[in-house]
Amino acid sequence: MKILAIDTSNRPLSVAVMDDDNLLAETTLTTHRKHAEFLMPVIEDLVKKSDLQPADLDRIVVASGPGSYTGIRMATTAAKTLASTLNIELVTVSSLLTVALNIDLPDVLINPIFDARNQNMFTGLYQRKAGKLQAVVADQHTNIAEWQAVLAKTSGPIMVVGDNQPFLADLKATLGNRLLVASHLQAIPDAAKLGWYGAQLSPVEDIDAVVPRYLRLTKAEADWKKRHPNEDTRNYVEKL
Amino acid sequence: MKILAIDTSNRPLSVAVMDDDNLLAETTLTTHRKHAEFLMPVIEDLVKKSDLQPADLDRIVVASGPGSYTGIRMATTAAKTLASTLNIELVTVSSLLTVALNIDLPDVLINPIFDARNQNMFTGLYQRKAGKLQAVVADQHTNIAEWQAVLAKTSGPIMVVGDNQPFLADLKATLGNRLLVASHLQAIPDAAKLGWYGAQLSPVEDIDAVVPRYLRLTKAEADWKKRHPNEDTRNYVEKL
Repeated sequence: MKILAIDTSNRPLSVAVMDDDNLLAETTLTTHRKHAEFLMPVIEDLVKKSDLQPADLDRIVVASGPGSYTGIRMATTAAKTLASTLNIELVTVSSLLTVALNIDLPDVLINPIFDARNQNMFTGLYQRKAGKLQAVVADQHTNIAEWQAVLAKTSGPIMVVGDNQPFLADLKATLGNRLLVASHLQAIPDAAKLGWYGAQLSPVEDIDAVVPRYLRLTKAEADWKKRHPNEDTRNYVEKL
Repeated sequence: MKILAIDTSNRPLSVAVMDDDNLLAETTLTTHRKHAEFLMPVIEDLVKKSDLQPADLDRIVVASGPGSYTGIRMATTAAKTLASTLNIELVTVSSLLTVALNIDLPDVLINPIFDARNQNMFTGLYQRKAGKLQAVVADQHTNIAEWQAVLAKTSGPIMVVGDNQPFLADLKATLGNRLLVASHLQAIPDAAKLGWYGAQLSPVEDIDAVVPRYLRLTKAEADWKKRHPNEDTRNYVEKL
């Protein structure tokens, strides 16, 4: 199965073309947020360098969030458009899980973190069980104080990977010697691992129904909810 | 420190631009052996995408072998030429160590293997000690029977990474349950990890003195040695 994997959830852009679990071509950039400018040319370049045509692709795997609004909208839109145009399969993967894939250690809890500013974070807890990465605590938008309460209930070593810097003192206070910190390199999403993971997922998504995993309301949604406290936020777009 | 890292030792081509331990841009290709065609354009593209000029680079880190003759000669020549032209530092790293960097597991022996055909291999044994990858058995050109004798003297789990397929039955016979096998993805050199590792090395090399780590004689050298059994092979080039 020929797979195109895409992650532009945060500052890094990572794109890979895979043939099952074999990497054919991959590019990762972290130097700018101009994903709109670079994403399609990088995809075209890598498909070409893989000696493939777009029509040869069988599946697109996209890290659909959480992450920056712009980043996850762009990746999801590009993935949906390509999957729809080429009439191929689409699979979405958590962007937090994608970063957790960089940690190979068995028996440790893996804690990917994306900074969401003002002491807020996107985070979740993962663990490798029998070689397979599994969610232990679901991805969520939370703040460091609430997350410390979650971590306090765990036991054993926890490896933090991602934007740990704003939270490191608090994490250290809660975890003490249980805290392990991944390297900078391990915090960068690797589309090859994303593609490998997504190749094994089933069923595939209904392309039209795929939306980014925002995991929090936009400001507009939050304001609307404040004015309509008894209505389901899922109706927000329809109501507008 | 701005670093350009290059590995074309075998079929994969991996190039990365780093700023200390931060990855700026990386491309990895495995689809062809046309390294001569792709290496320089990929380097130029990544330096540009990193918003750098070649003159901004401080150090080149090259995986200098063992590996395919053509591949390690090309990488070493490109690295020497660039380092000399730009008047910057050059550091060489074992191509086997580069692949071993993909394995994060502590406490296991890491056994990178490159197939050298006819039951021969380039191989060595590494281990992470206090987080740092160290050689346990030096890189060598050997055959599977001799390598089995080396492995038989070790204890504990051994993770094989690289071209394990031709040797897997023999390795299994020697190691039994001690044998762990890395994934395809883990067998592909990652120039970002190479650059990170090479950034920490000192002293840097005398650029003119750098030669590929062939670890075996070329056929011409072997023939010459047969005709001159009592002479030092190091004199081969001078004698000619």
